Amino acid sequence: MITALVPGSFDPPTNGHLDIIERCAGLFDRVVVAVANNPAKSPLFGAAERVALLEECCTRWDNVSARSFDGLLVEVVRRVGADVIVKGLRAVTDFEYELQLAQMNRHLSGTVTLFIPTNAEFGYLSSSLVKEVASFGGAIEGLVPPNVARALKERLADER
Amino acid sequence: MITALVPGSFDPPTNGHLDIIERCAGLFDRVVVAVANNPAKSPLFGAAERVALLEECCTRWDNVSARSFDGLLVEVVRRVGADVIVKGLRAVTDFEYELQLAQMNRHLSGTVTLFIPTNAEFGYLSSSLVKEVASFGGAIEGLVPPNVARALKERLADER
Amino acid sequence: MITALVPGSFDPPTNGHLDIIERCAGLFDRVVVAVANNPAKSPLFGAAERVALLEECCTRWDNVSARSFDGLLVEVVRRVGADVIVKGLRAVTDFEYELQLAQMNRHLSGTVTLFIPTNAEFGYLSSSLVKEVASFGGAIEGLVPPNVARALKERLADER
Amino acid sequence: MITALVPGSFDPPTNGHLDIIERCAGLFDRVVVAVANNPAKSPLFGAAERVALLEECCTRWDNVSARSFDGLLVEVVRRVGADVIVKGLRAVTDFEYELQLAQMNRHLSGTVTLFIPTNAEFGYLSSSLVKEVASFGGAIEGLVPPNVARALKERLADER
Amino acid sequence: MITALVPGSFDPPTNGHLDIIERCAGLFDRVVVAVANNPAKSPLFGAAERVALLEECCTRWDNVSARSFDGLLVEVVRRVGADVIVKGLRAVTDFEYELQLAQMNRHLSGTVTLFIPTNAEFGYLSSSLVKEVASFGGAIEGLVPPNVARALKERLADER
Amino acid sequence: MITALVPGSFDPPTNGHLDIIERCAGLFDRVVVAVANNPAKSPLFGAAERVALLEECCTRWDNVSARSFDGLLVEVVRRVGADVIVKGLRAVTDFEYELQLAQMNRHLSGTVTLFIPTNAEFGYLSSSLVKEVASFGGAIEGLVPPNVARALKERLADER
Repeated sequence: MITALVPGSFDPPTNGHLDIIERCAGLFDRVVVAVANNPAKSPLFGAAERVALLEECCTRWDNVSARSFDGLLVEVVRRVGADVIVKGLRAVTDFEYELQLAQMNRHLSGTVTLFIPTNAEFGYLSSSLVKEVASFGGAIEGLVPPNVARALKERLADER
Repeated sequence: MITALVPGSFDPPTNGHLDIIERCAGLFDRVVVAVANNPAKSPLFGAAERVALLEECCTRWDNVSARSFDGLLVEVVRRVGADVIVKGLRAVTDFEYELQLAQMNRHLSGTVTLFIPTNAEFGYLSSSLVKEVASFGGAIEGLVPPNVARALKERLADER
Repeated sequence: MITALVPGSFDPPTNGHLDIIERCAGLFDRVVVAVANNPAKSPLFGAAERVALLEECCTRWDNVSARSFDGLLVEVVRRVGADVIVKGLRAVTDFEYELQLAQMNRHLSGTVTLFIPTNAEFGYLSSSLVKEVASFGGAIEGLVPPNVARALKERLADER
Repeated sequence: MITALVPGSFDPPTNGHLDIIERCAGLFDRVVVAVANNPAKSPLFGAAERVALLEECCTRWDNVSARSFDGLLVEVVRRVGADVIVKGLRAVTDFEYELQLAQMNRHLSGTVTLFIPTNAEFGYLSSSLVKEVASFGGAIEGLVPPNVARALKERLADER
Repeated sequence: MITALVPGSFDPPTNGHLDIIERCAGLFDRVVVAVANNPAKSPLFGAAERVALLEECCTRWDNVSARSFDGLLVEVVRRVGADVIVKGLRAVTDFEYELQLAQMNRHLSGTVTLFIPTNAEFGYLSSSLVKEVASFGGAIEGLVPPNVARALKERLADER
Repeated sequence: MITALVPGSFDPPTNGHLDIIERCAGLFDRVVVAVANNPAKSPLFGAAERVALLEECCTRWDNVSARSFDGLLVEVVRRVGADVIVKGLRAVTDFEYELQLAQMNRHLSGTVTLFIPTNAEFGYLSSSLVKEVASFGGAIEGLVPPNVARALKERLADER
């Protein structure tokens, strides 16, 4: 049985993230979406909220679960018993940094990282652009799943 | 059962290629290495020779086989019943071209491409550099498997 | 009156090219599509054929015309009286080479080059990929205009 | 009548920025330089100061004006009635991020972004490098217009 | 006599840095490692500590010394009497920013910058990744010299 | 005594090449410019002609000589007794390929490669662009040394 770990911040999850998770759900026996806690980055949603949003989006696949983590990714890999790390990849500058991380993670734990290129139609999507657009009242339908769109509107209304 | 297709020219196979194939052998149920025939590129080794070299290198994994193909990659994907395409990735300029191919292949067949970054120690390795080094009598041990090193020396001796 | 020159090989024109031409038609008074003759590159379609295909595609805009050229781009700029060169831009490696050409053209003639990023949905499209897909009988609908699809099929049938 | 919007931080404007604005002034009927307010980034000069510096630099072109904005760029595009967004482009890593923004802005409003490559002689120029050089007393003549050089020296003297 | 200046943050020095310094020690008469003070970046080690760690690592080469600096790099170049600046280079995105700095420094002082590519086996190494790995208790042997490994453990124990 | 090897095609030498050679002449005791013979690439000038053109350009530096070579670069390094390889570097895509070559050469011979970024004003210059411009009668003054400009005009007149 092969387990894939899909790490990220997911603050919030976008349709680009779900496209990657859907691909993994079809290829691997078990998929664990690992949400980096990262309180130092002052995320818009807490780690538990991001896990809950992801689980709502992923009920359609019964081999996908989500959990948060602190600390080193290779530690989660070990605890979860993951055989492979999978990351979505959007652009060349992403690639360089991700390549460094992948080589460090392989050095530290022997675990290899697979990259899935983002679907062309989501090439411009990122969690931070979505937050910026939403914070100025721009339209985010089609960029994020409906439950995320609702959560974003509520959170941003609270902050005003 | 998940089948991964690993396409390439493999003229000749290098230790970088074998690193990618080994990773796939551990992650997927069946791995088919697909050798592009490409007679127009006047390869050093014919497609059948490259398939034979690969099969010699891959006997240690019983879920890996090799075959050659002409024509569109998506056609082989269909014939083999592959669920995913896997490519090794060395550098940023590789990535751009490979990303275009991956998006075209997804457009044509719905099949997604996964990328595995080359192990850091093989980052400078390419089939064409290996051929150039060998053709001037440079040392290629450690860059290619022993059977490929032997075949390269014989072929280059024939050409003189 | 501002005249924009849109140079390229257009062997053949794709929907990505037409997206760029449409944008220019809306922004500039006159748009001249300049088809590089380049017989040394053995194009699939002759320069006159490529001009004819483009003119068929561009009848909907009355400020767009097409012509072929040999020699230096800055020479066409002078003859046409162009105020600006416009190029579509797909990827980072495109950008580097195009930037060099743009700086050389500015050095030679003082004419500046504007770049329009390709629409995300055409990010994987290139004339050479289209030719490769078509040559193996793959589906090119949605990638090129209908008259180009017809011409491609006829030409490739002739070559067999 | 075609209106071009040239957005940026301009903290402070450099000779590279003025080169881009000069090009736009020659190509479009009306040019609006849009200064992002961005108080969260603690700029060295307030938005109103940056607008004033730009207007001093741009008096030589009677079709150029400057204004500040908060919020989404596509909102300013709408208010100003701009037909096109124009950005200067220096380097590959700029290009990737700008490409994402351009595709997002096209998705949100249908407005296309044109890129003008920076003149080769200003390839190393950025507002933040200029501020760093000036803050340590380095020579900034030739990098920024005279009024900006004066304003920088006064501001940095105030801060000590 | 040729003096090379090797600037950086070195927070902390890694085996990748030492590889660059070793190469310089063999090529130039005198090598000065210049540690940027940068208190605004809240480094883990103070500038004096980083100088001391470097000097411990460099005792094997008698033409290498280390010192800290504030302000513009070109000022240190002048004070030290350096003939050339040397930087290690890991990745494409590094290269772009470093190229801008190199051209600015050449504009300001006429001093040229040489780049040495990082050894392939250290391609994934950076001071910040090392700090992140160490802070979560990951293994850093083989990534940094022994004295740096000890200093990192003590510092991180103090911070808890 | 440190010897630097500056390899390339130099078909023909440009002012960008001379800028790199001048820098090396000031930093190293002996500089050998190594001209790759490469008859398979059908150069415009034979290797002996390129060596002669370079030697004419380099008479002002008495520690610079030129010679041609066939075969592996590391072989010339050995014969010349070079301590370091130096290459000019223009762009990111150059960098990736050069980085691969540099790592291969370090693997084969232990010799390190230093990179010097091209002066900003020559950023758009390449031998092939110069040949293209000259072949269509464009102005090449300021792009190449006077003796190269003369040789180019004569050669291109002969070819007509």
